[in-house]
Amino acid sequence: MTPGAGDKALGSSEDARVARTRADVARAALEVLTSEGSDAVTHARVAEIAGYSKTTLYTHWPSRVDLIALALDALGELPHHEQSGVLRDDIIGELQAFRQGITDMRLDRILTGMAQWASVEEMREIRDKINNSGQGPMRAMLGNVFDGAELEAALSMLTGVVACPSIMFGSLPDDDVIAAAVDIVLRSASRSG
Amino acid sequence: MTPGAGDKALGSSEDARVARTRADVARAALEVLTSEGSDAVTHARVAEIAGYSKTTLYTHWPSRVDLIALALDALGELPHHEQSGVLRDDIIGELQAFRQGITDMRLDRILTGMAQWASVEEMREIRDKINNSGQGPMRAMLGNVFDGAELEAALSMLTGVVACPSIMFGSLPDDDVIAAAVDIVLRSASRSG
Repeated sequence: MTPGAGDKALGSSEDARVARTRADVARAALEVLTSEGSDAVTHARVAEIAGYSKTTLYTHWPSRVDLIALALDALGELPHHEQSGVLRDDIIGELQAFRQGITDMRLDRILTGMAQWASVEEMREIRDKINNSGQGPMRAMLGNVFDGAELEAALSMLTGVVACPSIMFGSLPDDDVIAAAVDIVLRSASRSG
Repeated sequence: MTPGAGDKALGSSEDARVARTRADVARAALEVLTSEGSDAVTHARVAEIAGYSKTTLYTHWPSRVDLIALALDALGELPHHEQSGVLRDDIIGELQAFRQGITDMRLDRILTGMAQWASVEEMREIRDKINNSGQGPMRAMLGNVFDGAELEAALSMLTGVVACPSIMFGSLPDDDVIAAAVDIVLRSASRSG
């Protein structure tokens, strides 16, 4: 059957309702993920925060990984440093923005939430999108001074100077540790040619 | 009442039974954590694997974080490289041992399991013990060529070259990326004096 004008109107209104439910539940799931951790992202808890029934949530998002993927989809723009053109300052600024994002947006909980379901196929796309968007500016900057295996190594290493203390010890690096990391990497780059 | 010989014997036998239960449940919790991820570490699942009742588990370990802490306590020795005395080889070997531990012992799941409860006070001691034991040999080696903020930075960075791809993308670095990371750090150290 070809949809007529009436069907289209009905479809649009139904679509709008579904889209609104999706947005509400996604926001609630993200709120639970960042404020309570991935362990708390259950149908019961997200339904409570979103103000929908558990049945509605189970109908649209049958498993917990669906709720996590929905939360990640609602994450929006990741924090980045506005670049000045001075490489050392810009890399330091980018790492400080990442550190700030751990404090303000609880990116550490986003990271561990993603990591928990790293092997689930349906998480791969959203996970890669978020991680690539998070590392994008840093990759571009490091690409000015490194390539190949050294570029991959430098990117993981500088991400690690913020991510590792956070994930392993629940702590964040001071400004002097961030600056020391950038200096180690850039000093090495300038001598490698 | 002063305990007599009979009480002592009873106490010992009771202690032995509790210790055996604890060891069985700890092994089961670790098995669930590494084979299914921290999300699966529930009283129901661990009881099933350990062959004890859920009631027994709830009595001794009332919350899920108790089960995670118990699992981590059963982890045992972390994999380390046998040192040759050649710094570059030994750091590369240590990172390869860490990478092997992610494959063999699913240290990535241990890391994300710990990270999820990073802010829970009762996890702090066991988490710090495991992380310090994991990073210990690397810290000692890097301490030969760095100190202060640069030592902290180099330690987080080299941990990150293995941990970050694993946590962010579910992948592991090739040998050439590990070697590139070590060369970036050591090249910088040799020129910093």
